[in-house]
Amino acid sequence: MFTKPTLILDEAKCRKNIEYMAHKAKQLGVTYRPHFKTHQSIVVGRWFRDYGVERIAVSSIPMAQYFAADGWGDITIAFPFVKQQADAVNELANQISLTLVVSSIDNAKDLVSLVAHSVNILIEIDSGQGRTGVQPYDLESLDSIINMLNQNLLTNFVGFLTHAGHSYGVSARDIRELNNQTISRLLPLKQRYPSAVLSYGDTPTSVVAETFIGIDELRPGNNAFFDMQQASNGICSPEQIAVGLACPVVARYPNRNLVAIWGGAVHLSKDFYIDAAGNKSFGAICRLNDDGSWGQPIGDLYLESISQEHGMVRVGSPKAMESIGEDDFLVVLPAHSCLTVDAMGEFWVNGKYTKAMPRY
Amino acid sequence: MFTKPTLILDEAKCRKNIEYMAHKAKQLGVTYRPHFKTHQSIVVGRWFRDYGVERIAVSSIPMAQYFAADGWGDITIAFPFVKQQADAVNELANQISLTLVVSSIDNAKDLVSLVAHSVNILIEIDSGQGRTGVQPYDLESLDSIINMLNQNLLTNFVGFLTHAGHSYGVSARDIRELNNQTISRLLPLKQRYPSAVLSYGDTPTSVVAETFIGIDELRPGNNAFFDMQQASNGICSPEQIAVGLACPVVARYPNRNLVAIWGGAVHLSKDFYIDAAGNKSFGAICRLNDDGSWGQPIGDLYLESISQEHGMVRVGSPKAMESIGEDDFLVVLPAHSCLTVDAMGEFWVNGKYTKAMPRY
Repeated sequence: MFTKPTLILDEAKCRKNIEYMAHKAKQLGVTYRPHFKTHQSIVVGRWFRDYGVERIAVSSIPMAQYFAADGWGDITIAFPFVKQQADAVNELANQISLTLVVSSIDNAKDLVSLVAHSVNILIEIDSGQGRTGVQPYDLESLDSIINMLNQNLLTNFVGFLTHAGHSYGVSARDIRELNNQTISRLLPLKQRYPSAVLSYGDTPTSVVAETFIGIDELRPGNNAFFDMQQASNGICSPEQIAVGLACPVVARYPNRNLVAIWGGAVHLSKDFYIDAAGNKSFGAICRLNDDGSWGQPIGDLYLESISQEHGMVRVGSPKAMESIGEDDFLVVLPAHSCLTVDAMGEFWVNGKYTKAMPRY
Repeated sequence: MFTKPTLILDEAKCRKNIEYMAHKAKQLGVTYRPHFKTHQSIVVGRWFRDYGVERIAVSSIPMAQYFAADGWGDITIAFPFVKQQADAVNELANQISLTLVVSSIDNAKDLVSLVAHSVNILIEIDSGQGRTGVQPYDLESLDSIINMLNQNLLTNFVGFLTHAGHSYGVSARDIRELNNQTISRLLPLKQRYPSAVLSYGDTPTSVVAETFIGIDELRPGNNAFFDMQQASNGICSPEQIAVGLACPVVARYPNRNLVAIWGGAVHLSKDFYIDAAGNKSFGAICRLNDDGSWGQPIGDLYLESISQEHGMVRVGSPKAMESIGEDDFLVVLPAHSCLTVDAMGEFWVNGKYTKAMPRY
């Protein structure tokens, strides 16, 4: 059916995932600003418009340029301002409604000194992940940054942005508590700076939590595709995963309970998850149907190891070996769909290949 | 100096690494057939010709096509035959001296039924890694495969190929023993099939071991660039690493001993190594010089975590924070250079950008 490892995208599943979040955001009365770093595709981006989405988030200037060229007019670059990209930023700010993020005092200084067109600014808050952002209790730094922004006519301070990335290792039943804790760190900012908006929303909290007090917009990205990391934490079911990597089967080792596929780290990247049996897995394994859809993950099978182009599927039982029969392809549901999409740069959707964003 | 994360390639270091191996192979009286999956670059490939290299190994048909188009006339595809690529294989076999690998009985059956032009065949042996290949003691399978090959006029059985990938986690001082053990598993094959050649040689054994009894060719790839996985095992020194990812510094957190860079999993892939202090590290950190070279790895600094586009550099001391001063870039020596090259798809070498092989 294919001649190479092929990332199949199931449009119906993807649309269902988008629709769920668009509907939820509407019910909550918050803006749904999906993060497009997961799919990096103009084709997929257009699907979001059918659910009322007009504002998006991206993770780099090149990605903002890519989507702006397809008519997206309100883009947040949810990454600290990169001063080396100032020229491209200023050019883009002249074309669309651009929101930039500053993530530390020195980062804000760089921005203020280089900005040449009017832009909206969100200050990033570290709400518990320990990655980028100002600490929410560090009012001295926050006041200092806001003063800097207010003194420049081109930098329009609009509020705060956070990414609760520490939610990724948390099971669905603990997400609500993490969500409440995280938001409780942000709410004092809303009291101190009443006009500020709060931009929030990783996939686990956005999908699972019900209350988002004080939050103005949600920016999940992964939920459009989901993956086995999310499924293994109970954030989604495997049936909701919208992308599967079809991999040619190249060799079978019934005596060693292994099957080799053409599908490795250059296709999947190298993230993993811990499956229900406690195995470190690089992906769940399904059968490929003739129409390009795939079946349920096959019990007793998982992607045990990957090297550059090799994938080794562990087969737990003779019955499991039998279940994959003489199949020419196996479908890997990826551990981390965002990185798999980035590694592949291309989808097969509705019977044809479509390129995602080129490397920058 | 750059406007984006940029993979700098140091030609002098790379040539020294190539020259070392070419010289060693000559001294040993074996063929040096470098694996080109590490650099995936026509430009770098041409450097090898200066050291007498005429035969290469690659990891996929598209990669074989890419290098054949640049005049390489003797290519081994060191990956199990992919039946879905049979048309491309047959076309290529008509153009160059092509050597294919079969890795199991079913894999050999597929090849024999689809081959349409004369090709050389190596049977892959699992010499201890536990990945692909026939077990060296499984003479029944080996005889059966060789019979299949001998009955087809187009498949010219020439010998055996193995990849001792289990050498990657082994320190330099234990490599010789591993090498001797591995080769001792192969030597009975040489006795049983006297005309068969033995193709061997991952980077750790090729670089460190001195004796390769019965081995006819070495196929290391990573040694042209090396990386921190190799350095952490003592296979090379950090000064021999020929590629560094220059990453814009975006935010500093002196109170949290962290520096954020634009350089994440989409640039480096997601392999790691354990550094001398026992840290899980995604790369060593160096200063970028004005001419595009880089300094020694800075003690007390390492790349502690990466997400899609973020890299977080852990700074172990105020002195270390001081040592990176106000630098606009930091250079990451990657954990695994092959995957970093594949993720980037481009080098900056001698003052200009050059593309590597495009995604297939």
